[in-house]
Amino acid sequence: MYECDLGRIKEKISAFSKFGDTGNGGITRFSLSPAAIQARKEIVARMTRLGLDCKTDDLGDIYCTLAGTDADADVIMSGSHCDSVRQGGNYDGILGVLSAMEMIESIVTQKIPHRHPIQLVVWTNEEGALYEPAMMCSGIICNKFDKETMMNSLAKDGSGKTFGQALKESGFEGSRENRIDPARTKGLVELHIEQGPVLEEGGFDVGIVKGVVGMINYEFTFQGQADHAGTFPMPYRKDALFAASQALLYLHQKFDALNDRDLVYTTGKISCHPNIHTVIPDEVKFTLDLRHSDPAFIRRCTEIVHAMPKDWAGCTMHFEPAWTRDTVLFHEPFVAAVQKVADAMEYKSHVMYSGAGHDAQYLSEIVPTTMIFVPSKGGHSHCELEFSPPEWCWKGANVLLNTILEIDRQ
Amino acid sequence: MYECDLGRIKEKISAFSKFGDTGNGGITRFSLSPAAIQARKEIVARMTRLGLDCKTDDLGDIYCTLAGTDADADVIMSGSHCDSVRQGGNYDGILGVLSAMEMIESIVTQKIPHRHPIQLVVWTNEEGALYEPAMMCSGIICNKFDKETMMNSLAKDGSGKTFGQALKESGFEGSRENRIDPARTKGLVELHIEQGPVLEEGGFDVGIVKGVVGMINYEFTFQGQADHAGTFPMPYRKDALFAASQALLYLHQKFDALNDRDLVYTTGKISCHPNIHTVIPDEVKFTLDLRHSDPAFIRRCTEIVHAMPKDWAGCTMHFEPAWTRDTVLFHEPFVAAVQKVADAMEYKSHVMYSGAGHDAQYLSEIVPTTMIFVPSKGGHSHCELEFSPPEWCWKGANVLLNTILEIDRQ
Repeated sequence: MYECDLGRIKEKISAFSKFGDTGNGGITRFSLSPAAIQARKEIVARMTRLGLDCKTDDLGDIYCTLAGTDADADVIMSGSHCDSVRQGGNYDGILGVLSAMEMIESIVTQKIPHRHPIQLVVWTNEEGALYEPAMMCSGIICNKFDKETMMNSLAKDGSGKTFGQALKESGFEGSRENRIDPARTKGLVELHIEQGPVLEEGGFDVGIVKGVVGMINYEFTFQGQADHAGTFPMPYRKDALFAASQALLYLHQKFDALNDRDLVYTTGKISCHPNIHTVIPDEVKFTLDLRHSDPAFIRRCTEIVHAMPKDWAGCTMHFEPAWTRDTVLFHEPFVAAVQKVADAMEYKSHVMYSGAGHDAQYLSEIVPTTMIFVPSKGGHSHCELEFSPPEWCWKGANVLLNTILEIDRQ
Repeated sequence: MYECDLGRIKEKISAFSKFGDTGNGGITRFSLSPAAIQARKEIVARMTRLGLDCKTDDLGDIYCTLAGTDADADVIMSGSHCDSVRQGGNYDGILGVLSAMEMIESIVTQKIPHRHPIQLVVWTNEEGALYEPAMMCSGIICNKFDKETMMNSLAKDGSGKTFGQALKESGFEGSRENRIDPARTKGLVELHIEQGPVLEEGGFDVGIVKGVVGMINYEFTFQGQADHAGTFPMPYRKDALFAASQALLYLHQKFDALNDRDLVYTTGKISCHPNIHTVIPDEVKFTLDLRHSDPAFIRRCTEIVHAMPKDWAGCTMHFEPAWTRDTVLFHEPFVAAVQKVADAMEYKSHVMYSGAGHDAQYLSEIVPTTMIFVPSKGGHSHCELEFSPPEWCWKGANVLLNTILEIDRQ
């Protein structure tokens, strides 16, 4: 088994943490922002110095290719994204880019023979933090989103700028013919932090990711009557927040009673109208996001939602399904390759599903794909607390390096 | 007993419903807005035509005086406010102004003898819907608020205008010496809609208002941990919205168990951070507004709040008292006068407290004061549904007319 360089990993993480540094241990690096453009330029400069051929496609996705011994062999890709959420951390996305860079740097400096071209890929706008939606450019490539519509996506900061304008101004808009060509691609391996506490809690070095769990999303609406807090007697009230609180606890109770450790569900967003402390709320909405790898289990949860009472504390309830995702299964020979490498390196590994969505999930529909997870300290992510010690990142990069070489031999 | 004119009442309600008409049965008439200035000009024009002397004080409060037979007698005042909340109704505040105008018009046209000067008063900015706080100008007069601070109150519409600028531009800024002089005021009677369903439900014609109930307000904060909805297992979560929902239901359960029909309490406002459907909430706040006429009962409720568990679903809870109000008792001889008049007119009356705050509550600290309530259809208020049929308003105006004359004889 080959190994990456721990010192170089540390240097990379430290160097890229400067682009969009919040000063509090994290970064704000919206896609195509000045900070993101700094990061992109640094990626291309480093890859060019290593002798790679760097191109961008019409969506700003970056592809840097290290030639293999067989010019006709299909490309093996690895990478992730370099944008972040507001006050995000130094690992989500960028660690997948830095690990792929380190994997390539190790191959170059250690002169490791490989038959296939090996390619770093950096997907544009994975977070969708400034220009919605998330996973925008991998989504366009995989026919999830219409390019024209996406180009008109308006910045959420009220600046009036569109994604398309930002892309033009970035200097990273390339040619459509540079997009990933599934017919010439052997596969893709994305390394990412876990964004959850399972690996750390279990003392695992690496997560072998079988797929991305399916999800359902609902929005519940409770309709009551707005009246004066001081004058309207309790028995006549139709308090939509009281109703919504009851229903929220009901859902928690029902889902908890399923007693399934792989189920995660979240009631993360609530709105209340008119939301004035002296007025009885007349309309409250909250969301439910529920994920599980087993479609049959998700159906059971859907049945619980549909069987809910429609009357809560005198208020009416209705719900709308928002978006759903079927469970995505990664390419089994690749999953097996990651497992084989982890075992050979005597790393403690854990086979798991990804609860979060990643570019790899879309790409898996057009090319063989898998993912490798590095543990997240405390499970924290999408916040400045996000942290994976350099040694953990190094082990992940080692698994990535040897998996790419394993795929090269497949 | 004298009677007002039902036709004139209808005309007045209809005429003033045009100033700020939303087109949906209600009005938006923020204090000192163009719509409010139209209403003010119409009030002054009508009172001037009836031969009254009209002045404004340095806060824009309007005083229109009908001389009595005794030039040295103290003034008897009646009135309310002409501003509304956004998409409010045609009764809250303005009915007290229109009833006082009708009471004076009845005295003038029926040539009813009276010893004391009788004065219409229109308080500026009772709702505080554009310039906070509510009951601003009666509050300044009664030393609740500092005038200078209030003049700098910024419009909530982001226009950058202050209350003081709006007052200057309105043309209604008068002299400070025109303010109500407690030493020369016999008392004040404010007619208002109930803003609750008690009178209508009981088939009452009029509410005899003993006072304004005391209140306590709290803001509760729940602190958890924000993590990814898809990756963070349930047992490790610290979900602040789950915690807050439990605590909200706990409060409802504890207060309901007190089984007291005069208690009203409201959890009307909630905020959730980061309020994203894919993130576990890390901070949720909600408010509690609780009102009861008995201070000892309010103390029991305060004890329930203080005895609450501090840990909810792994989140910490703390609370801050916001503002409180002691129960205000109105002037007993005036309350008795209203009762005497209602009985003499064979109107079915109900002795009650006001749950809402009114200008009269502040004024009662500097002059003898009481209130008369007219039933509200369905109890709805602060909305376009707000409605009291003309006959109900007319009965209220009759009680006001005869109460003023009763006080004139006291």
